[in-house]
Amino acid sequence: MSKVLFNEKTFEDLLDISKSLSSERDLDRLLDKILSEARRFTCSDAGTIYLVNNNKLIFMLSQVQTLFDRWGEQQTREKFKKFEMPITKQSMAGYAAITGMVLNIPDVNKISPDKEYKYNASFDEQNDYKTVSMLVVPMKNRQNQPIGVLQLINAFGEDKKVIAYTKSLERLVESLASMAGIAIQNAQLNQEIRNAHLDTILRLGIAAEYRDKETANHIRRMARYSLLIAESLGWNKETCERLLYAAPMHDVGKLGIPDEILHKPGVLTTDERETMQKHTLIGANILHHSRAEELVLSKLIALTHHEKWDGSGYPQGLKQKEIPIEGRIAAITDVFDALSSRRCYKEPFPEEKVIEIMKHDSGRHFDPELTELFLSKIVEIRSIQIRYQDTDADFDKLRNINALSPADLIDNNKNSQIKFDF
Amino acid sequence: MSKVLFNEKTFEDLLDISKSLSSERDLDRLLDKILSEARRFTCSDAGTIYLVNNNKLIFMLSQVQTLFDRWGEQQTREKFKKFEMPITKQSMAGYAAITGMVLNIPDVNKISPDKEYKYNASFDEQNDYKTVSMLVVPMKNRQNQPIGVLQLINAFGEDKKVIAYTKSLERLVESLASMAGIAIQNAQLNQEIRNAHLDTILRLGIAAEYRDKETANHIRRMARYSLLIAESLGWNKETCERLLYAAPMHDVGKLGIPDEILHKPGVLTTDERETMQKHTLIGANILHHSRAEELVLSKLIALTHHEKWDGSGYPQGLKQKEIPIEGRIAAITDVFDALSSRRCYKEPFPEEKVIEIMKHDSGRHFDPELTELFLSKIVEIRSIQIRYQDTDADFDKLRNINALSPADLIDNNKNSQIKFDF
Repeated sequence: MSKVLFNEKTFEDLLDISKSLSSERDLDRLLDKILSEARRFTCSDAGTIYLVNNNKLIFMLSQVQTLFDRWGEQQTREKFKKFEMPITKQSMAGYAAITGMVLNIPDVNKISPDKEYKYNASFDEQNDYKTVSMLVVPMKNRQNQPIGVLQLINAFGEDKKVIAYTKSLERLVESLASMAGIAIQNAQLNQEIRNAHLDTILRLGIAAEYRDKETANHIRRMARYSLLIAESLGWNKETCERLLYAAPMHDVGKLGIPDEILHKPGVLTTDERETMQKHTLIGANILHHSRAEELVLSKLIALTHHEKWDGSGYPQGLKQKEIPIEGRIAAITDVFDALSSRRCYKEPFPEEKVIEIMKHDSGRHFDPELTELFLSKIVEIRSIQIRYQDTDADFDKLRNINALSPADLIDNNKNSQIKFDF
Repeated sequence: MSKVLFNEKTFEDLLDISKSLSSERDLDRLLDKILSEARRFTCSDAGTIYLVNNNKLIFMLSQVQTLFDRWGEQQTREKFKKFEMPITKQSMAGYAAITGMVLNIPDVNKISPDKEYKYNASFDEQNDYKTVSMLVVPMKNRQNQPIGVLQLINAFGEDKKVIAYTKSLERLVESLASMAGIAIQNAQLNQEIRNAHLDTILRLGIAAEYRDKETANHIRRMARYSLLIAESLGWNKETCERLLYAAPMHDVGKLGIPDEILHKPGVLTTDERETMQKHTLIGANILHHSRAEELVLSKLIALTHHEKWDGSGYPQGLKQKEIPIEGRIAAITDVFDALSSRRCYKEPFPEEKVIEIMKHDSGRHFDPELTELFLSKIVEIRSIQIRYQDTDADFDKLRNINALSPADLIDNNKNSQIKFDF
């Protein structure tokens, strides 16, 4: 094996991998790519990637060719779920993560008992697999701290027998791991910024909640329903995500409607209703002139989510496909959630009644094709309803200004439960 | 020269550069690094980087060792300002950007007249410089589209004479340029997400504007003043930026205050004032439980920007350094802007009067050290006032709901003027 290393071809391969890794901004796809490339490079049967997080080691994925061949790749991958374990020097991955050192083990069954790390045979036992040689390499970020561990298992020699990892292979994988560490850090930073952005968008929704009768969970459900339709339409991941980010701001214009109209208990007069309908324009105006794609789209949704398929909606009276598809989607998901959830002025309608109303208004209020598509996803709809269920607190606590006290608010830290997961 | 290429050392250098480029997320620093590394690798006296944007070629930076030696590096760099030029095949950079091909020119004075591209001697004439050999390499993104051009000038041979770029150097720079292209694209995507996030934060401020008497520019000025203090305190770039992002949301809790109190023209009763003061708690509650650093900080500022140095503020009555420094900064910059700008109920106070009031309240309302530091930056304060000046439209248009029409709002495109630059 050693003769294939560090010639021009190998280096060009490494440079290509480097480019390929830095092109990948999605963490899961990146990890999969890292492991595939490392296995390919070292002719390894198997491999595993762990990430370090809050003093835990998170098992992220395994690829095992022998098991892929035995059970099929998809089925095998589904068997390996993400799990956490403490970082200790007793596991080989933990040892590499703590010390930052490479472990090159010719045979895991012959590890000297005076070593701090042991081989844990449970994987082999559970999967009827036989681990022999292992190469365990820490992946470090730009501050040179280990942020993950790349573990390769059973290198094949030329005659398909398992051999030990050579010194040159070790060096090669170290080089690959150092690129991988930076690419992982970039993908994580990227995800952090996106999360912060999405969180801010939700706060905008929560701010609107202080003024309206809707809950923050209405916004989450409505955005998730919209995503469900987009996915069913086969939109690509990026376009789907843009809709998920844009939808929560559809009613932001209600922030500009006077209390006396927004909170009026009875029926609105014609004038009042006209003012109320201005929330579409106010929303579009708040979101106007942005260059950010999500905000350009959310402006469009704010402006068009009250248009109706038959042309009887507002503010422009657009009809059918004159209404942008994102506005047609939002019309369906916004009304569906209003009907199927509790509001402070009404109980939720039963599911059958909601579906009956939606079907009745399909072709009048709603785009009939999109309505049919949406209602065909009732299983997914129900699981969104369960995940983002309203609680009594959602209705009372936030709007009861006098119940707020600094003590409830100052005890915040970055490790707190993610309340606003999305 | 050619013998140094493509040995193990060169490849390891390239791998190191690859890691170094993917570690850099700031575009300007990244471009500087790309050019330095490319010059070092090829022993080039000079180099220039262009980026492609909206069918324009943007000159981003030049490094010229001869001129650095002659005028000093800092002075030379300041001479070269960013500028735009059309992309045409007549310039060498434009040719590389349009065709995606490398130009390797042994002597720019001997370019055959039947070539589409010409050498533009204006740089040489303006700077008393003599360009001979050039290597012009397009930098491509992951979709293989040229997004920039790396231009190297005057390769030095072993005897310090200018020589032509060898074929191996050409290949090496192509390899470097392909990594650079991906790193540039990553930095640009990163910047786009951050801009979208900041834009969303400002929309939250603009939404609050619909309800309060303040303008969107108040929020921008106040955030910029806060940044000014942070920079004067020597905070690092990241911490400064976090404050810039967090400060605009300090009054988001006003969205939860009833119209009758928020818009009451006269003096508030004791009860009404108490409700009004709840905007600090409502704001903190809207921003509570976020894991995003900017939002954790904005919650802290929302909660503490009405505390006073002498303990007479609200909601907690904290005093002196019990008040987080970000809250003490926001107290100064929020009040300073309220005094020095027009509100719909008052004209701006003259600068001397504002400074007099700030000094009088220093040690009572405000942290005296921070107040002194802030007021010492009057030149920078004035330039922020000019950049984010209120116009009459800011006061009238947004709050006049009936003046809004769909026609004003639908004609939006991504190339529109950045109205909400920050």
